[in-house]
Amino acid sequence: MSGLVRFSVSVDEDLLRDFDALCRERGGSNRSEAIRDAIRRQLIQREWEADEEVSGVITLLYDHHQPGLSERLTEIQHYTLSDVISTTHVHVDARNCLEVIIVRGEARSIEALANRLIGLKGVKHGELTGTSTGKTLR
Amino acid sequence: MSGLVRFSVSVDEDLLRDFDALCRERGGSNRSEAIRDAIRRQLIQREWEADEEVSGVITLLYDHHQPGLSERLTEIQHYTLSDVISTTHVHVDARNCLEVIIVRGEARSIEALANRLIGLKGVKHGELTGTSTGKTLR
Amino acid sequence: MSGLVRFSVSVDEDLLRDFDALCRERGGSNRSEAIRDAIRRQLIQREWEADEEVSGVITLLYDHHQPGLSERLTEIQHYTLSDVISTTHVHVDARNCLEVIIVRGEARSIEALANRLIGLKGVKHGELTGTSTGKTLR
Amino acid sequence: MSGLVRFSVSVDEDLLRDFDALCRERGGSNRSEAIRDAIRRQLIQREWEADEEVSGVITLLYDHHQPGLSERLTEIQHYTLSDVISTTHVHVDARNCLEVIIVRGEARSIEALANRLIGLKGVKHGELTGTSTGKTLR
Repeated sequence: MSGLVRFSVSVDEDLLRDFDALCRERGGSNRSEAIRDAIRRQLIQREWEADEEVSGVITLLYDHHQPGLSERLTEIQHYTLSDVISTTHVHVDARNCLEVIIVRGEARSIEALANRLIGLKGVKHGELTGTSTGKTLR
Repeated sequence: MSGLVRFSVSVDEDLLRDFDALCRERGGSNRSEAIRDAIRRQLIQREWEADEEVSGVITLLYDHHQPGLSERLTEIQHYTLSDVISTTHVHVDARNCLEVIIVRGEARSIEALANRLIGLKGVKHGELTGTSTGKTLR
Repeated sequence: MSGLVRFSVSVDEDLLRDFDALCRERGGSNRSEAIRDAIRRQLIQREWEADEEVSGVITLLYDHHQPGLSERLTEIQHYTLSDVISTTHVHVDARNCLEVIIVRGEARSIEALANRLIGLKGVKHGELTGTSTGKTLR
Repeated sequence: MSGLVRFSVSVDEDLLRDFDALCRERGGSNRSEAIRDAIRRQLIQREWEADEEVSGVITLLYDHHQPGLSERLTEIQHYTLSDVISTTHVHVDARNCLEVIIVRGEARSIEALANRLIGLKGVKHGELTGTSTGKTLR
């Protein structure tokens, strides 16, 4: 297990003052927290580019009256079972469904799964949101 | 209830050939489907800009060892109950949690909620993914 | 040389009505024009992914008091002469320069050049904006 | 005029090690430089959101055979003279032009100008790239 270390950064004092103002404006996070956030965001992008094990969320908006679509969505998720962690389904109104699938696997494999689901006839909108497993992301 | 209509688009034939090749490459979707997708994507962006009622997904990666964080996440979601539809929680490993919150409400209100959650101390990474309620998005 | 063709798209009439309203709101472009724009945007993204010959713009904001930076920028552009079309330099104020470099070449090669320039010590902000040579983009 | 100051950040040592590896991989920039870059990027985004005075680049790809387009581009730029710093024009091939316009002004005003130019009939692709005047961005 690793511990906390401190390192120092040199910045122009005007830049630092503006950054502190921005942190205050956003509320909550202090300077160290904001910098750790920026570091983590870059490392997550790196994990996706390097095709490492990542996690993510696939958001699908679809019309459940589309014949065969619900079955197709279920079927594809079963074929790719090792990448799918959970699925939450929301009945938005009489026609519209929001299906939110939490996934975990190699980046390229997750992207391929998302493209396949989003490309299905009857899916009105779909997005893949990438995050990390957090394993190496303290 | 509204029905299907057809309209015609004039394009350079080379552009159309390249577009058809792209649709084939992506698999699944035909030309009409791909154009409907592009139209919907623009309308969803418009819904968010115009602060209409939208739906979305807030993805949070956090360390549940952070004192008070789980309670804070729950508390904020209860205060904004009218915007929160459901929450799915995944135990990624011994430390890391993935919390995926499905939301629905006015765009600015959803953005404020997302910023508040993502800014909490101990949240390692957070993203708001915008989609639509689909109501006016056939 | 290729000519204009027409093809027809079937859409729900509500979706089409909302799309027409959006086109009017943005001013200028009619339905066909808006759809051609969406098609072209997808084909340009494809050109970059497939590492084809593309064009683009590298925007650099830097402090010309940074020792050796101007020389370094010029030197790198000379080494990669085949990719650089033109450079425009704006003296923003006593310290700040905006340098805008128009480039053309294979996508990966353009990206490498942009990363190298943006990563130089003293460059405060840099962006690569991708577009096309337009050759196959009618 | 402001001087350099140092401040210290506390981070988990694993996170710091991964960040250092990422900086090395990208070449050039050290840890302080990479953190300053991340800070500046956030401040620039803030300048655009707060409608401050910014600078930017409008990239237009168009077909100069489109009747009246070149005249229209010139005319609009003259009407908005106070926002336009310079224009560079590249003859990409017999048909295609790349026009790169450096702009400076209030963020909303720059966005309106960009939308107007990009929406013109015959413009195949357009992008607005936002940067800063660098005035308060050390």
